[in-house]
Amino acid sequence: MNTMSHQPRLERLRRRMEEAGIDVMLCFKPENSFYLTGFNPIIYSHPVVAILPREGKASMLVHALRDDHARASTFLEDIRLYGAWSTKVTMGPSWLEALKTMLTEGGFAEAVVGIEEDFLPMTRYRDLQGILPGARFADVSQLVFETRLIKDADEIANARAAAAIADVGMYAAVDAVGQGGNEREIAITSMAAMNRYWAETYPDAEVCDFGSLEGGVQNGLWTWVFTHERIFMNCDNPTVRRPVKGEPVFIDIWTIVNGIHAENERTVAVGTLPDEIKRAIESIIAIRESIVPLIKPGTPISELYAQARRGLEENGYGRFLPGRIGHGIGLGAHEGPSLDAKTSFPLEAGMLLTLEPNLRMPGVCGTQISDTILVTETGCECLTRSPNGFLQV
Amino acid sequence: MNTMSHQPRLERLRRRMEEAGIDVMLCFKPENSFYLTGFNPIIYSHPVVAILPREGKASMLVHALRDDHARASTFLEDIRLYGAWSTKVTMGPSWLEALKTMLTEGGFAEAVVGIEEDFLPMTRYRDLQGILPGARFADVSQLVFETRLIKDADEIANARAAAAIADVGMYAAVDAVGQGGNEREIAITSMAAMNRYWAETYPDAEVCDFGSLEGGVQNGLWTWVFTHERIFMNCDNPTVRRPVKGEPVFIDIWTIVNGIHAENERTVAVGTLPDEIKRAIESIIAIRESIVPLIKPGTPISELYAQARRGLEENGYGRFLPGRIGHGIGLGAHEGPSLDAKTSFPLEAGMLLTLEPNLRMPGVCGTQISDTILVTETGCECLTRSPNGFLQV
Repeated sequence: MNTMSHQPRLERLRRRMEEAGIDVMLCFKPENSFYLTGFNPIIYSHPVVAILPREGKASMLVHALRDDHARASTFLEDIRLYGAWSTKVTMGPSWLEALKTMLTEGGFAEAVVGIEEDFLPMTRYRDLQGILPGARFADVSQLVFETRLIKDADEIANARAAAAIADVGMYAAVDAVGQGGNEREIAITSMAAMNRYWAETYPDAEVCDFGSLEGGVQNGLWTWVFTHERIFMNCDNPTVRRPVKGEPVFIDIWTIVNGIHAENERTVAVGTLPDEIKRAIESIIAIRESIVPLIKPGTPISELYAQARRGLEENGYGRFLPGRIGHGIGLGAHEGPSLDAKTSFPLEAGMLLTLEPNLRMPGVCGTQISDTILVTETGCECLTRSPNGFLQV
Repeated sequence: MNTMSHQPRLERLRRRMEEAGIDVMLCFKPENSFYLTGFNPIIYSHPVVAILPREGKASMLVHALRDDHARASTFLEDIRLYGAWSTKVTMGPSWLEALKTMLTEGGFAEAVVGIEEDFLPMTRYRDLQGILPGARFADVSQLVFETRLIKDADEIANARAAAAIADVGMYAAVDAVGQGGNEREIAITSMAAMNRYWAETYPDAEVCDFGSLEGGVQNGLWTWVFTHERIFMNCDNPTVRRPVKGEPVFIDIWTIVNGIHAENERTVAVGTLPDEIKRAIESIIAIRESIVPLIKPGTPISELYAQARRGLEENGYGRFLPGRIGHGIGLGAHEGPSLDAKTSFPLEAGMLLTLEPNLRMPGVCGTQISDTILVTETGCECLTRSPNGFLQV
């Protein structure tokens, strides 16, 4: 635990809270409560509430059974408990009553309380209204989103580790394609290689992802494999289909280290591809190369999409335009911004993106190439390093 | 795809909709939209909307890039598209406008519209109010929860497969403890064994879990390992700590097959345990055995907790009572009901539960044993079959 690492993000959040007139912020969304506390319980069946006042100490409310785990993970000092578990002493059986006590004692009974309207379920919102009838609630979804856009030093270090693991998975997967494995064999070989590398190389890192109300995500080192017409599935479990000569295989690798994701996706030719497919892959590689110089502070995001569009149209692929050519990545495997025609705000140093202008030509073929890219002060740095030119086994 | 398998659940849902006066139900929660459609896109960054009218055809609204995947997965015939993707023809760029068209054309502009108030974010609720100003919204969270309690034949078959995979993982993990592996080595060995067994034994099964707004869950075959004081973490990533002689190791295995989860958790003694720890484990094994005969239709759930409590108190563990001794399992790894003192409704055939009365004695030790149990017409059946008595390596 680096007790200093969270200071930049909390300061940036507080500055925005000041601008928006928010007195205290409550975060329930797993990615956001982790962002404010450093604690990921992996499963969220018992709520974790991160409480950030504009001034004063941040605190966290967790179920008694999460006490030891929370203390071992968080950079906060103030941890409060609810519920019943063995000999733990708690504030009471209900998180809601405990939160009411904390907020009332903190002087927030009539405050402006920031909540995540893009995540908070309606019943939970009504519960909050019930315990704080004199408060005014305001949405902080956009405020937190904007703060998360710029990654802190610890997040960038975690992205580098996640990218390094993804590279290991890609080498193993490409090798397994060459060995003649079916989709599942390729995926399983690659995931096992990533897990071994993680276990040996990063003794202090966690690779769990963020769970939900009903489930937990214990291990987030994943390899997706798509062959033949299955490339049009985009997101699906690997099957027992075996690639055959003359077809492209999509390998999509998603990883996570200490809450930060990376993505490395490649299209691998099995033997010699038909000209039409080879031309599509080579066009996409050239289009990617034409976009990279634009990835630097100040470039409007829509310019990246416009450049991809020009390239696709010039190569005769104007009928097959994708909706977007990448997305933000960080605490979310897919988070904002969307790299599309409508997103016009400029890139800034510290943003983390995937670059993936790709083709889906129904009945013909497709391409899938993606890298995790950090926007730097002077340009950009590709964190995923495995070869991203034309790959053939 | 078994086109008949979904009929029982849709009929039960419609009967409850009739009782509650709901004209049409909209499900956004991943577990619930899967329940109504059979489609899991794995990542939910683009909403999937399941639309179930009380009478007439059910339908589903998905992003264009999910079209092929949805068609290959769902048991519904009516699939509508939104968004832009290659040559796909869609209802328009926005899911909200497309849903408005569907509901207006379906005659639901002034209907009673069921929504999941325990999941639906506030912004999405306001969006729905905006497109259906004449509708009345009613909560269907409890209605869907109650319907999900009783598993259909296809769900029970999937639970059996998930339990069989979990057993394979448990044998591999216990063996790896015996080989002297550290927490990560035990977990990785066990997860690899489960993946190989899945790949070879269940060619048509999927093992992805349900993702969230920002992330996808590609592979949900997980092994958790806890040694020494780390048993008090309950939910955490494995570390590089190696078990030593005389201590118990917790192995928690969670699996999923076609959306249905299983859980198999064991406490393994490494060498000879101190008497105090051995006695705790043996007491828990005896308490579990005393509860099993009560697991049958008609027993109030609180009776199971009461029996555990009696056993713990009789054995001198009254200070260490857990908050609950198990939970429902199915589309959620942890779903309702909670097996606690307050839940008084009776068990019914078709319910799927975990049984896990366990101890956490701070500074001393703990136990973790759990099985996935199906309530049958005459009693119960333990789906996880690996030995659950005293285990020692």
